[in-house]
Amino acid sequence: MEFWYTEKHTNDVKFSIRVDKQLASIDSEFQRIDVFESPAFGTFLTLDGYMMLTEKDEFIYHEMIVHPAMAVHPNPENILVIGGGDGGALRELAKYPGVKTLDIVEIDKLVVDVCKKWLPQTACGFDDSRVRVFYQDGLKYVRSCIDKYDIIIVDSTDPFGPGEGLFTKEFYGNCFKALKEDGIMVNQHESPFYPKDAEAMQRAHKRITESFGICRVYQAHIPTYPSGHWLFGFASKKYHPVRDLKVRKWKALDLKTHYYNTNLHAGSFALPNYVEEILRNVESEE
Amino acid sequence: MEFWYTEKHTNDVKFSIRVDKQLASIDSEFQRIDVFESPAFGTFLTLDGYMMLTEKDEFIYHEMIVHPAMAVHPNPENILVIGGGDGGALRELAKYPGVKTLDIVEIDKLVVDVCKKWLPQTACGFDDSRVRVFYQDGLKYVRSCIDKYDIIIVDSTDPFGPGEGLFTKEFYGNCFKALKEDGIMVNQHESPFYPKDAEAMQRAHKRITESFGICRVYQAHIPTYPSGHWLFGFASKKYHPVRDLKVRKWKALDLKTHYYNTNLHAGSFALPNYVEEILRNVESEE
Amino acid sequence: MEFWYTEKHTNDVKFSIRVDKQLASIDSEFQRIDVFESPAFGTFLTLDGYMMLTEKDEFIYHEMIVHPAMAVHPNPENILVIGGGDGGALRELAKYPGVKTLDIVEIDKLVVDVCKKWLPQTACGFDDSRVRVFYQDGLKYVRSCIDKYDIIIVDSTDPFGPGEGLFTKEFYGNCFKALKEDGIMVNQHESPFYPKDAEAMQRAHKRITESFGICRVYQAHIPTYPSGHWLFGFASKKYHPVRDLKVRKWKALDLKTHYYNTNLHAGSFALPNYVEEILRNVESEE
Amino acid sequence: MEFWYTEKHTNDVKFSIRVDKQLASIDSEFQRIDVFESPAFGTFLTLDGYMMLTEKDEFIYHEMIVHPAMAVHPNPENILVIGGGDGGALRELAKYPGVKTLDIVEIDKLVVDVCKKWLPQTACGFDDSRVRVFYQDGLKYVRSCIDKYDIIIVDSTDPFGPGEGLFTKEFYGNCFKALKEDGIMVNQHESPFYPKDAEAMQRAHKRITESFGICRVYQAHIPTYPSGHWLFGFASKKYHPVRDLKVRKWKALDLKTHYYNTNLHAGSFALPNYVEEILRNVESEE
Repeated sequence: MEFWYTEKHTNDVKFSIRVDKQLASIDSEFQRIDVFESPAFGTFLTLDGYMMLTEKDEFIYHEMIVHPAMAVHPNPENILVIGGGDGGALRELAKYPGVKTLDIVEIDKLVVDVCKKWLPQTACGFDDSRVRVFYQDGLKYVRSCIDKYDIIIVDSTDPFGPGEGLFTKEFYGNCFKALKEDGIMVNQHESPFYPKDAEAMQRAHKRITESFGICRVYQAHIPTYPSGHWLFGFASKKYHPVRDLKVRKWKALDLKTHYYNTNLHAGSFALPNYVEEILRNVESEE
Repeated sequence: MEFWYTEKHTNDVKFSIRVDKQLASIDSEFQRIDVFESPAFGTFLTLDGYMMLTEKDEFIYHEMIVHPAMAVHPNPENILVIGGGDGGALRELAKYPGVKTLDIVEIDKLVVDVCKKWLPQTACGFDDSRVRVFYQDGLKYVRSCIDKYDIIIVDSTDPFGPGEGLFTKEFYGNCFKALKEDGIMVNQHESPFYPKDAEAMQRAHKRITESFGICRVYQAHIPTYPSGHWLFGFASKKYHPVRDLKVRKWKALDLKTHYYNTNLHAGSFALPNYVEEILRNVESEE
Repeated sequence: MEFWYTEKHTNDVKFSIRVDKQLASIDSEFQRIDVFESPAFGTFLTLDGYMMLTEKDEFIYHEMIVHPAMAVHPNPENILVIGGGDGGALRELAKYPGVKTLDIVEIDKLVVDVCKKWLPQTACGFDDSRVRVFYQDGLKYVRSCIDKYDIIIVDSTDPFGPGEGLFTKEFYGNCFKALKEDGIMVNQHESPFYPKDAEAMQRAHKRITESFGICRVYQAHIPTYPSGHWLFGFASKKYHPVRDLKVRKWKALDLKTHYYNTNLHAGSFALPNYVEEILRNVESEE
Repeated sequence: MEFWYTEKHTNDVKFSIRVDKQLASIDSEFQRIDVFESPAFGTFLTLDGYMMLTEKDEFIYHEMIVHPAMAVHPNPENILVIGGGDGGALRELAKYPGVKTLDIVEIDKLVVDVCKKWLPQTACGFDDSRVRVFYQDGLKYVRSCIDKYDIIIVDSTDPFGPGEGLFTKEFYGNCFKALKEDGIMVNQHESPFYPKDAEAMQRAHKRITESFGICRVYQAHIPTYPSGHWLFGFASKKYHPVRDLKVRKWKALDLKTHYYNTNLHAGSFALPNYVEEILRNVESEE
């Protein structure tokens, strides 16, 4: 059966995954939601045709968007996830016994419903009793929060469509205010390789540096995302992402991770020259 | 114009690059050699239909196969490259003024000729006066070398076809003998993500550990290789890849690199848990 | 959304249809059944990944497999369809008021169920009160019939998988016996263009000529079948496909057809030289 | 080697041919010219990325654009080909001993040069001593001809780009004037199946009927053209395409053809109802 899902990474580069079956296809109020079954990546979710996550490699993204901040902050108790309706970030956060509240703001309830049905391995994050779900616009939600969270995870889609507002200066400024005085914001930060992705990444970095004092970017290998080279932003009021890493404390938690470890934590902040250059270009603009 | 080169990363995953023109197509004694021009990656070279290098991202592979060993070894003067007929590894090695001889053993002269014509940015490595080219089987060449090289770079194709012999225990053993008492061997080490690549990577690691005392693996982001997550092996008689890194000395050389830097050097040896596990599995077998 | 169904017409030729959604995917006892929705062809059905019919062009196939024989036979009352679980041939046959019994033998009940649900425009053929459905192997069914039908329509899949038996000499011989003394058998006859299809077409013709006195082949333009050039076989005990065409009688029925007409009927038996040659090659073998 | 040429037959339908090598790629003054070698279709030519002809099936197009008019006209001596720079129409015309002059007007000399080099089987048409080549705009050339030709073959590309002018009312009017009082014009007439092709076909028919008294359309099976269902226009001042067919005379010439024969000639003018309807719609507008 020749049945393929293709994502155009650029107009001139295609990444194609053989599909066994399409499991679901729903038009929500906000976007088109599709779930596919594939021999290479297991079940995978797309929104408006863009790859969101696959059963086989989602662990990389979700571990890397959660553990670095959690291993740096000395006492993360109140956590907010913006976006992340698949539940993967929640699942990783729920591994920490010290967490007291786990709020998530997802604009599209149907994404959550679909993931609960077809991607239970990921959506199990919603099962934790500390989780509170708010189905609303993350942009609006965060506007009304002040000095409330230790960590905010911005687990957004790409900077167009429903996720667009989560890449604005206003939004990052509101996240800053919503964080406590030693809070940390982590965001999915696009990719440095293909020119359009690199621009989005640069723009996001510029906007974050306008609000936060400490802004670093770290990287991971995510095979199903464009170029496989994906970035995350670490924006912090007080803690340094590497110097304040609490290696012993984190290891003592004895969490089971498949990608993240504290060595890799430090390593992931060491970026290639060409990426550093793109970032420095906007830093120096200020 | 819809004209695409596609590489099957697995039977169920395709990576496709829009081609503007095919620049060359030659059947050599050993393999089919093709050169294409593409809007996304510039000129690129394939051997037997497998992606070898593209103008846009070859700097990553070539910097990462060369600089880590060069930045660790205290006095690398005699270098051997096995394979690497595109000249990219030579180009990076030629940046070091301390190097005295730069030998390269490439089985297929036509690869060199084609790269000199169509990929001069890469093949310029051959222009250095210290370079000596041997057109022969690397496996045979290395058999006759004893205590001769400070560093051997195994810049092979994949472990099938002409490159197959460069993944055998015998070959690694001969490289060990060809190296001086504090020599280092670096090899392209396949990828950890797709199961078949991971097996090849594991097998290579097992065979190298049978000859060398210090065997570490490091990673880079190479967008045009399967999964974008590529590994290199660092096999050493004496020096540790991270502890013996000479940061100040390397920086003093003031080499211009686009990907590599000494921070990233250390970071690249910090591997994800799942990769460490695959490697440990064969280490413990011994 | 880049989501494509592809059929390999040969190992070196692909025909791809953009899919909007997959509507069904079922593994029956006999084959895999899939239904897709596409912008270009509407809903379409595949069996074991091979294109069977699309909403947009099925009228061509179904009109052409039915009306030529019906317009030649002077009094077709008892009709048998073998295969044809989509109901399209039945739909065309049911247009004739003179038909008394409309038997269909389909091996796979799930094909019928799926078509009734997703392709009602085609499956409506089953609604006619004269239709009797036998869910069994057409090969076996026809063995037990003697002198029973005026017309047999062999609406089979390709000559491999469940449809294989419907391309054998034994089967055609049994169809001959199942037909009355002036009966006509029509079969889907593959395509003359790509070498493997042409072989199948030639083989079928050879086997039919071994049983029937009058064996002619006619053609139609079916855009979604390999090469778009599709053939049907007209095997007859008595009537000639063109000389015995009853133009005035057929026109008097005033049937609404979208492809077939009596001019085209005659024209469709005029084959290109290269097709005639392939057919003559096996005729002369006898 | 996964290397494919793809033509989008519509935005939602792709036809792909595996390519072994690209043999030529030239930007002429008018268009991009590419030649490919493929296992399924042999050498093939594209203009601006659109399929023009393949070694394997060009005989169908070239026989069908030439022989019907030649078999109807009682004494075709002076022939004009407009477009047709590949030489295929010339090759078929040159088979007729009665032809005295064979003029061809091709706008792009490079197309002729490329075909002479890479498609000699087709371009051999230029070798006939009666051939006179004019490298200029067919639209302009025909403006200055009055009562000069027995047959004009309009072998144009699609109605956009360089071929656009060859689908205008003015052009057809000038062809009418360029023909003698019993002249015939044949043109490639696009396809009836996909909506945009059908519109182009309908528009061409409308414009031709505005100049010529007898306007009929005939069809052929061309596997490499969109839908495989291709049309030709037969526009005539005096002769009817079927009633005036000279079967015996044509057979007496004993020409070797691979697709065309006089039976098929008549058959090819019998069109499906849905095509007749599209044509009638514009005929009745007048």
